[in-house]
Amino acid sequence: MSNVIGTPLAKIDSWDKVIGAAKYADDMNLPRMLHARILRSTMPHARIKSIDTLDAEELPGVVAVITGRDVPIEYGILPSSQDEQALCVDKVRFVGDAVAAVAALDVETAERALQLIHVEYEPLTPVVTMNEALDETRDAIHSGEHADHHNIHKMVALEFGDLDAGFAEADYILEENYFYQGNTHLALENHSALASFSPDGHLTLWSSTQTPHYVHRALAKTLELPASRIRVVAAAIGGGFGGKTDPFSHEIVACKLTMLTGRPVKITLTRQEVFYCHRGRHPVLMWVKMGVRNDGEPTALHFRTMLDGGAYGSYGVASTYYTGALQTVTYKIPAYKFEGMRVFTNKPPCGPKRGHGTPQPRFALEIHLDKIARHLGLDPAEYRKQFIVDDKTKTVNHLTITTCGLRECIDRVVEASGYGSEKRETRNESQESKIENQKSKIKIGFGLACGSYLSGAGLPIYWNQMPHSGVIVKVDRGGGVAVFCGSTDIGQGSTSLLAYIAAEEFGIDVRDVRVITADTDLTPVDLGSYSSRVTVMTGNACIQAVRPLKQKILDAAAEKLLVPAESLSFRDGEIICEDDDARRLKWTDAVVLTEAKHGTLSGTGSYKPPKRAGPYKGSGVGVSPSYSYAACVAQVSVDIETGQVRVEKIWLAHDGGRALNPLLVEGQVEGSVYMGVGEALMEEMTYRGGLHKAPSLLDYKSLTMNDMPRVETFLVETNDPEGPFGAKEAGQGPLLPVPPAIANAIYDAIGVRIDETPITPDKILKALEEKEKGRTARFGPKNFPNAPYPEPLHVEPPEDAPRLERKKG
Amino acid sequence: MSNVIGTPLAKIDSWDKVIGAAKYADDMNLPRMLHARILRSTMPHARIKSIDTLDAEELPGVVAVITGRDVPIEYGILPSSQDEQALCVDKVRFVGDAVAAVAALDVETAERALQLIHVEYEPLTPVVTMNEALDETRDAIHSGEHADHHNIHKMVALEFGDLDAGFAEADYILEENYFYQGNTHLALENHSALASFSPDGHLTLWSSTQTPHYVHRALAKTLELPASRIRVVAAAIGGGFGGKTDPFSHEIVACKLTMLTGRPVKITLTRQEVFYCHRGRHPVLMWVKMGVRNDGEPTALHFRTMLDGGAYGSYGVASTYYTGALQTVTYKIPAYKFEGMRVFTNKPPCGPKRGHGTPQPRFALEIHLDKIARHLGLDPAEYRKQFIVDDKTKTVNHLTITTCGLRECIDRVVEASGYGSEKRETRNESQESKIENQKSKIKIGFGLACGSYLSGAGLPIYWNQMPHSGVIVKVDRGGGVAVFCGSTDIGQGSTSLLAYIAAEEFGIDVRDVRVITADTDLTPVDLGSYSSRVTVMTGNACIQAVRPLKQKILDAAAEKLLVPAESLSFRDGEIICEDDDARRLKWTDAVVLTEAKHGTLSGTGSYKPPKRAGPYKGSGVGVSPSYSYAACVAQVSVDIETGQVRVEKIWLAHDGGRALNPLLVEGQVEGSVYMGVGEALMEEMTYRGGLHKAPSLLDYKSLTMNDMPRVETFLVETNDPEGPFGAKEAGQGPLLPVPPAIANAIYDAIGVRIDETPITPDKILKALEEKEKGRTARFGPKNFPNAPYPEPLHVEPPEDAPRLERKKG
Repeated sequence: MSNVIGTPLAKIDSWDKVIGAAKYADDMNLPRMLHARILRSTMPHARIKSIDTLDAEELPGVVAVITGRDVPIEYGILPSSQDEQALCVDKVRFVGDAVAAVAALDVETAERALQLIHVEYEPLTPVVTMNEALDETRDAIHSGEHADHHNIHKMVALEFGDLDAGFAEADYILEENYFYQGNTHLALENHSALASFSPDGHLTLWSSTQTPHYVHRALAKTLELPASRIRVVAAAIGGGFGGKTDPFSHEIVACKLTMLTGRPVKITLTRQEVFYCHRGRHPVLMWVKMGVRNDGEPTALHFRTMLDGGAYGSYGVASTYYTGALQTVTYKIPAYKFEGMRVFTNKPPCGPKRGHGTPQPRFALEIHLDKIARHLGLDPAEYRKQFIVDDKTKTVNHLTITTCGLRECIDRVVEASGYGSEKRETRNESQESKIENQKSKIKIGFGLACGSYLSGAGLPIYWNQMPHSGVIVKVDRGGGVAVFCGSTDIGQGSTSLLAYIAAEEFGIDVRDVRVITADTDLTPVDLGSYSSRVTVMTGNACIQAVRPLKQKILDAAAEKLLVPAESLSFRDGEIICEDDDARRLKWTDAVVLTEAKHGTLSGTGSYKPPKRAGPYKGSGVGVSPSYSYAACVAQVSVDIETGQVRVEKIWLAHDGGRALNPLLVEGQVEGSVYMGVGEALMEEMTYRGGLHKAPSLLDYKSLTMNDMPRVETFLVETNDPEGPFGAKEAGQGPLLPVPPAIANAIYDAIGVRIDETPITPDKILKALEEKEKGRTARFGPKNFPNAPYPEPLHVEPPEDAPRLERKKG
Repeated sequence: MSNVIGTPLAKIDSWDKVIGAAKYADDMNLPRMLHARILRSTMPHARIKSIDTLDAEELPGVVAVITGRDVPIEYGILPSSQDEQALCVDKVRFVGDAVAAVAALDVETAERALQLIHVEYEPLTPVVTMNEALDETRDAIHSGEHADHHNIHKMVALEFGDLDAGFAEADYILEENYFYQGNTHLALENHSALASFSPDGHLTLWSSTQTPHYVHRALAKTLELPASRIRVVAAAIGGGFGGKTDPFSHEIVACKLTMLTGRPVKITLTRQEVFYCHRGRHPVLMWVKMGVRNDGEPTALHFRTMLDGGAYGSYGVASTYYTGALQTVTYKIPAYKFEGMRVFTNKPPCGPKRGHGTPQPRFALEIHLDKIARHLGLDPAEYRKQFIVDDKTKTVNHLTITTCGLRECIDRVVEASGYGSEKRETRNESQESKIENQKSKIKIGFGLACGSYLSGAGLPIYWNQMPHSGVIVKVDRGGGVAVFCGSTDIGQGSTSLLAYIAAEEFGIDVRDVRVITADTDLTPVDLGSYSSRVTVMTGNACIQAVRPLKQKILDAAAEKLLVPAESLSFRDGEIICEDDDARRLKWTDAVVLTEAKHGTLSGTGSYKPPKRAGPYKGSGVGVSPSYSYAACVAQVSVDIETGQVRVEKIWLAHDGGRALNPLLVEGQVEGSVYMGVGEALMEEMTYRGGLHKAPSLLDYKSLTMNDMPRVETFLVETNDPEGPFGAKEAGQGPLLPVPPAIANAIYDAIGVRIDETPITPDKILKALEEKEKGRTARFGPKNFPNAPYPEPLHVEPPEDAPRLERKKG
């Protein structure tokens, strides 16, 4: 083994990023390139009566104008959600829905031309709130085939184990409502796409996409071109966080326009367009009912969610399942009922964002547990630790726990923060004097929460039939290694991780490995960068590709060195006999010997996740080769005069399995904390009559460097059998415990519960005011909507799941 | 089988070329790019006493100045010819030798800076002629290690069979001298290189090179970088013809400058620089002695060549062997002696040009045979046909004949042209009246000649130990096929051929195949585009890569269709059961099924030529998997008043095995004719005191469209067992018979022999003048130089070689 895995190395693309050599989609320009802009609906809900593009077409500098009739084929990311059109044909469904597009010699002309397109709308009553979506007297946003019922996109109800018995066993049952507000990814880079069509019928798209393979499929469908004539390349990506995971209207439009004009076409969205077409995090209403014994042991959990999906399906079916799937993977739950529903509204569609569908229920669950612990007089940390799932078991809903380092995660953050003890670090030294002055106004609190996330998941278009990741490795005669894989690096460093893995396996310097990614012509299919899947899935495929090559090299070296191949290992650019290290061969010489014997050296690896889906529909969502765990302690200070919450410090321990590069894992933790604090305290996407209230970086409130807490990160390295070198996920899981830890810390500081995000000063002040009056302010929904959840499907838990032991009676 | 192979298809890169999308090296620009120029020696032979670069360095806009001390490591294409330095350190050896280089903000500044570099030379007596090179009293151009003896770079002498016995059996022996003048490739694109060095130590070079792998090696050596950190990419190439086959000084210099400055550096040679640094065709003196019986049957051949190599080795060792190797592969020669010698002179170094080392001896041999036929009163065509080598035999010098279509080639051109009969087509109709007027002054003549060339060869750095070609094939889930190979397309269409082969094998449209070439990072090693090797060698590697994939696909399809895999074939985008064509599966569906079963679909193929070298040193040169054959009839008109020769028409039949794309083969024939006519009549590289006499497109006389004869091409398609689908070479062989056919036609027209190229009007007039006086003008060398050829190595011919049957005594 060389010294690559586990070492804090720079990302292999860091120099390119630093010196500006990395090319983002909008950096690219081609000769004769046209610039396109999209006309977007100003109505939240309306029928399109007519579109007159004549004036726009006649504007000098305009080369082409298209409308929905030019690209009418419906698409969508999931087979069950083929409900979008690149440009609307009959209806618009949200302010921002794409209606027409112009390609012109420059952006300004394209913009002017948009103003010359005359669209006649017949307005329909907009469906704005979730309650309105449930009102069957209102117009349906979609036709029946795209919805489970009227404006209900998806309904699901599952019951695992005996819920009634569980509640019957409980000593204490707590029921509460929670609300997690929608918010956006806020990637630095706006979406951009450059398309070029060659005269012999080959289409190339460079795009800031996390999922070139899905875009490839969507283009083939909507443009009616063979996939073999389409090349999709992910450019360098300036942040994704899930917001570049759907195939987007502007990608299809750019392609259609280049096909029509024969000239390259670029579309770069404005920040405002991104706010509208963002596919941000779903707002989710939640109702939680949990039963526990007096020692806190959970006996039953009933979880109900309602997602505000906005106007289209996107990944919404998966999002819905996700709001239910992972409640079971942290603590032993012997009986679990989940009811989920996603409704359509005339707002921008929601999709995946870091933690996809799981931060919302985690917020509810971890506050709920805090309340229960307080009620029972238990220490929230010690309490949780007693009921943590065991390694090598299954959950009540058939998810497989391979390794779980949550107990150690809790220990680490509790010990470091002094949570629950007198050792608590109470303030930032630099603020000492300030706090001294305002002592009585600043309240300090500590909160704890935990979380868990997937290490990759499948997608219904393939489930486990097809490889989720393919890798081809070439070993050059000069000793260079090329790794070809379809995965996209969205800044998280996945490309670097593949280089580390190959370098580790071959015992060579990382600089001797080149990674070629995310180009559907050059690289084998990889489903993309989402679900924290690349390190585990593409990494495993990489190892599979490398291993037979290693054996060939070992055999050739053994023949040359006259030693058994088993005695040889790859180390520091050499093949060395472990029994006699005078017998060694340079890597480059061994490669030449091997190529002379076997011919060109290349290997292929594929990864399919283990077949573990449970015996029920929808069980595939949530199934992951392994689960990461995280525990967080937040220290907050609350100014009771202004309601201002400041997160002073975050202690976060993450079990992401083996940290292949601890620097990158720490980076993911810090980024997750940044995002989690923002979601907890200030980020929100809200609308007035379908219009976004804050569609700009100036108006949308998010964390600045001044608001960023100090972060102390602990890596708890379980050695997971499913991961390459024991790795699990790291990119999303650390976010999950942050918002509930903050909410719990606020309660600890000022004794009020704010059960919805964002926890803004006005809510704090209102809560304090009510408390002063001896009342309890409620910020989650007062009543969970009366929704027609279906009869649940009863599913028998697996053998090795937590069992309800009857103690009573 | 689909309808790809044998079909006249467009090249797959033709649209890119036509619309200007193809990027040549000089088209590329990078941010912060510097422009470099090279200071070249003005002296043919001198010691460098000092170089003062201070003034140049101080010129505003100059970023770096380097001299030989910055890149002193010697390199060269062959292991035995490591005699060049990117910039000369101690000596300059020809006018044009590189001495220093400047990188500046623009070309003009770099040019000005060159004038500020002060080089102090100590002049040495230049060695200009071959006779001077043999004069041991003159200074040696190279130190001893780089030459066989003084200014003799290479000497070789080989004798196969019993030469004395052969000549003793002869009824007629003819001895003559011939001279073939040096000339240049005249590719439209001047050499250009763009180099970029990243801060993490990765060097990338885009270059107009035919041999990225050799450049890769040369860079690693001269820059002392691991090959794994160097990426060489062949840009689109605007013609090569062998002139871009060496690693060049300017490539190394561009790399060194980018490494020193941290900024990309581009060098594009001027046309004048290309003329000087061209590695053009060797001027070759030849002495031929041939013995035949009265019926023309060859009994012995003694061939002596002397090559004017210019200042460096280049491929010269191979060139020397080549002037001897292929005399035996057309006609049955039972005894053969070859003596070859290459000398160093203070002129630009010579290297490979289309036909590398073989057009010169072919010119001599085919004129020699014409003379013998005339002397014996035999028809030159019928005569040749009697002694053509047989399929599946070996030559006296151990070369293997797999298939030979030369007899049919002769028949085709004789029949079409009426050569040797009264049916001769005597003139171009459009010139009828002109000719009518000048009837007495215009003489018409017909000449015939033949030739043969290699289908690829090895190179001493590898011979057969390592693959000469590697190919990786990836089949995408969407049905697209990607072929990765290191070969370069220099305009001949080799990239297209690989697409045809893959498309044919898979039964799909050529547009579904993308070929990724000549990028040492992305593609496996291929030795490059020279020796007519790509179609046969890379083509075979491609088939080897494809076949196991096909089997997997067939097995998956068979399982699905419930038929035996043997009954299935790939046709028109489907897998079809030949016994029941209702049982069929779309290619795209079959691919998905196969990937589901086997994982990511990729295959690897390698090609090594068969091990066939004879039992003597140097036998590897000339060894080829197969040999192409060509026969040519030229019709010329000679104006006896002006000496002007016009080639009216060329009939050329080429046995290139199966023509994978007849359009491309015809294109190669026409291009070869163009080049052959130019070499025969006008092209010449001549020097005065080391200075090129015509280093510009205006001065260097070459064929214009007005001079281009009509060409009638015949493809004689032998089905060679060594080639993919029976193919042999086509890119170089058709040139060989053209110059001697023209020379023979001129004799036919006016009764004089011009035994040297170019056959210019002044030589014609002089010959006619001498003839008028009853004398014979000689244009070949009057006396072959008295050179110290070594004692020949006697080699026993193989069993199945032509045998001398003793008839006398």
